[in-house]
Amino acid sequence: MKKEAVITEERTLDPQYWSALNELGHRMLDDLFYYLETSRQRPVYTKPTAAAIDSMQQPVPEMPQDAVSVYEDFLKHVLPYNTNNIHPRFWAWVQGGGTPLGMLADMLASGMNANVSIGDSMPMHVEKQVLDWSKQIMGFPETASGLLISGASLANITALVVARHHADRNIKTKGLQSLPGPLTIYGSSETHNCVMKGVEVIGIGSDNFRKVPVDENYRIRTDVLQRMIVEDIAAGCRPFCIVGNAGTVNTGAIDALDELAAIAKEHNLWLHVDGAFGAIPNLLPEFASRLKGLELANSLSFDFHKWMYVNYEAACVLVRDPELHREAFAYAVSYLMVHDRGLSAGPDGYNNYGMELSRGFKALKVWMSLKQYGLETYRTLIRQNLQQAQYLAELVQNDPLLELMAPVPLNIVCFRYNPANMLTGELNNLNREILMRLHEKGIAAPSYTLLNGQYCIRVAITNHRSQFNDFELLVNEIAAIGKEVVSSKW
Amino acid sequence: MKKEAVITEERTLDPQYWSALNELGHRMLDDLFYYLETSRQRPVYTKPTAAAIDSMQQPVPEMPQDAVSVYEDFLKHVLPYNTNNIHPRFWAWVQGGGTPLGMLADMLASGMNANVSIGDSMPMHVEKQVLDWSKQIMGFPETASGLLISGASLANITALVVARHHADRNIKTKGLQSLPGPLTIYGSSETHNCVMKGVEVIGIGSDNFRKVPVDENYRIRTDVLQRMIVEDIAAGCRPFCIVGNAGTVNTGAIDALDELAAIAKEHNLWLHVDGAFGAIPNLLPEFASRLKGLELANSLSFDFHKWMYVNYEAACVLVRDPELHREAFAYAVSYLMVHDRGLSAGPDGYNNYGMELSRGFKALKVWMSLKQYGLETYRTLIRQNLQQAQYLAELVQNDPLLELMAPVPLNIVCFRYNPANMLTGELNNLNREILMRLHEKGIAAPSYTLLNGQYCIRVAITNHRSQFNDFELLVNEIAAIGKEVVSSKW
Ligand SMILES: Cc1ncc(COP(=O)(O)O)c(C=O)c1O
Ligand SMILES: Cc1ncc(COP(=O)(O)O)c(C=O)c1O
Repeated sequence: MKKEAVITEERTLDPQYWSALNELGHRMLDDLFYYLETSRQRPVYTKPTAAAIDSMQQPVPEMPQDAVSVYEDFLKHVLPYNTNNIHPRFWAWVQGGGTPLGMLADMLASGMNANVSIGDSMPMHVEKQVLDWSKQIMGFPETASGLLISGASLANITALVVARHHADRNIKTKGLQSLPGPLTIYGSSETHNCVMKGVEVIGIGSDNFRKVPVDENYRIRTDVLQRMIVEDIAAGCRPFCIVGNAGTVNTGAIDALDELAAIAKEHNLWLHVDGAFGAIPNLLPEFASRLKGLELANSLSFDFHKWMYVNYEAACVLVRDPELHREAFAYAVSYLMVHDRGLSAGPDGYNNYGMELSRGFKALKVWMSLKQYGLETYRTLIRQNLQQAQYLAELVQNDPLLELMAPVPLNIVCFRYNPANMLTGELNNLNREILMRLHEKGIAAPSYTLLNGQYCIRVAITNHRSQFNDFELLVNEIAAIGKEVVSSKW
Repeated sequence: MKKEAVITEERTLDPQYWSALNELGHRMLDDLFYYLETSRQRPVYTKPTAAAIDSMQQPVPEMPQDAVSVYEDFLKHVLPYNTNNIHPRFWAWVQGGGTPLGMLADMLASGMNANVSIGDSMPMHVEKQVLDWSKQIMGFPETASGLLISGASLANITALVVARHHADRNIKTKGLQSLPGPLTIYGSSETHNCVMKGVEVIGIGSDNFRKVPVDENYRIRTDVLQRMIVEDIAAGCRPFCIVGNAGTVNTGAIDALDELAAIAKEHNLWLHVDGAFGAIPNLLPEFASRLKGLELANSLSFDFHKWMYVNYEAACVLVRDPELHREAFAYAVSYLMVHDRGLSAGPDGYNNYGMELSRGFKALKVWMSLKQYGLETYRTLIRQNLQQAQYLAELVQNDPLLELMAPVPLNIVCFRYNPANMLTGELNNLNREILMRLHEKGIAAPSYTLLNGQYCIRVAITNHRSQFNDFELLVNEIAAIGKEVVSSKW
């Protein structure tokens, strides 16, 4: 029949000769190991060339290209112009640097091509193990639920959906449009913009995010928060959630989480903690008191890809009340029924706890990393980063031309170059110019922020490759570039 | 000073001896290549053992474990119990099988640890190239915007947020609570539940998703849709979006997208098309007419990890109006300012187009795959899967004990074992039992669905390793198991 005619043409995307592709794989592996091992020898930043950018403006390929030559295009046009957070002097935004074993784990996960959503297979159990470990690390009860997800942004949105469901279970079906007064949500003015975005995505509207002012340490003013909640209730609003910061993006400030928990309890509000990176030092016995109250949160987000140094992407959201978590997302359909036996049996689907159906095997790199290093190693590295931040702050304070712009409670240092007699606008431009030259010269990659309208060079240390002398070099180079810029009337 | 005391302790997560880890990497690579090359020789499904599950109920590791032994735990407890969509007879849900080059590309991406969000680096441009190619494949204009994301679920939510913004730009700040009447959204009763979940997540409420009935081919009844919209308007609702299906999850039905586009235009509604897998045959000239109207959608979601066979995770959302797309998500903050030069210069951040800030380098595997295979290879494989679906349908129709349960317009075949004289309830149980035994015996992994209350064995063919004789084997084994079950009065 039909079959006979077709069978001769049967094709697959697997290679005809596995050994050639295998050989290429070994070459890639060696190249990447070399790349990682020698990262310190290369500039932290290299601007993409016009040729590289041009190579990404091609029509969609019609015909096959040999895998080796595809790889050579990658080597020529992509690899040299990486974001480069693998470099010891990358301190921009808040980016971890990954590890070689993390890379290998991602290869395994990708080769397995596991879809960790439903079904009775081990990747489901590996994720459960990682979630259980996450609860232990964060002091959450064993009974809590959780989910791995790409980053703290989506982790925060996931938690906000549960918080909204806690406020009113009818919203899921009837929508926010059915509510009499607006739901309102509270967090400090230093809250990361992904939370604001989440508030917008879930339909609350960012005007209903009340930005509570901060004290001189950039921590939420809990007295003002109390007042705002009371006023909102009086005005007919429905406060439903407080977002606490365990480590703000600008300065690493940690809100008084225990006070927030008390206020939330008083008003029956949901307490969500955004601990993208700042929840991680909960691992350190000597630090845990500063995160007091973390374990009282109704939900908590944190990233593995930041201060746990796991390769992109990997984050986690934990929720104290597993039924509420499930109820907020579950949606039973016949094509995803759980069976008693076989592939379709097995643990409750992760799709019942979040926005995704298909989900990759992020859990594997986290599982392998936690096993390989053990918490003791992470403690050492996190302490080291904390000490490096203090060390940099000291270097800044000891240099009359540098000005520390904020306290350093965690791993973030904001400072600027400040020769006497310059106005804020001039200083802002000067420091922006210094930062751009630091990048262009490939020396170091801090980022920046504005604090009270003042441009700061911002060093966020979630880098396991940084050494103490890297910060000395940073300070010396900034002094040199500062001088150069000032004298060149740029 | 301080420094001297600390420097001696400096640590990193990089290996002390790179060569040992490198060697382990090569071993992993060979193991995974062997695993993929021999997938056909193993059962499609293997139930996790109690020992494997037990190994995932351990306390969080305090001390380091040698990387080799971590890998051996993986080999013993994880790899053998994979979801196993890499097997030639895996046809459950809708899962692609990945490719060896995709695996290697993920290794490269993970090693680079690129965060493809902001900054002037090549991974940003690689993603742009992939988005441009996606537009070409889907007939979207060059000016459209887009985003890679984990899966069609999040791609759909992303599009729905833009659709909501199109309905009323004030929702972003003021919330849905500020609207007079409820926003309503329309799609067929066969629409995937992730769309419903999206409607819930963004605060519209699933009651405001109007499930439009389908015709006998499981396609949306556009006449009823028209009527529902008019009635809703009369009742004070605000219709804002139609979701068209390019390939429903149950049967692969393709809605009349051109008619939906006309209706959307008439009422100034957003047309979003969920083309998770069914948009892919747009690559085939002979198929494109059945997707007519796809290119008129305001937004479109599709997966690379399903019918483009790319390793998990990778999906894409395209939006015709890039300004609206950006406006729906952008949120300017000082710590993410774009600079003129250096690392912080560069293309518009992808965070301005979606819910995520940190984003991995999914684009690399898509870019390398499209280059390696070229569209011609994909066309061959997609045609092969389409023919395999027709072939299976024929085998079913030629067997008096099997019953085809739905038309086969795409790559999904729903059927059941049906000896004469059984009631629906009995047939449902019988077929569920057959499916579970098929899995348990490791023969083949279709999944299941209910159509009009009738349990169907459901074969979704997005598998580049399947051969025509795999479907013969399936049909023969189902006949044998069916007989076995019936005669054993199970
Ligand atoms: C405090 C805080 N929350 C949330 C985020 C967003 O995390 P992600 O980029 O993993 O989505 C960040 C990122 O820097 C952050 O610093
Ligand atoms: C039609 C349709 N839409 C959306 C989805 C969800 O896609 P993903 O699992 O990639 O999130 C699926 C998954 O099977 C689907 O079939």
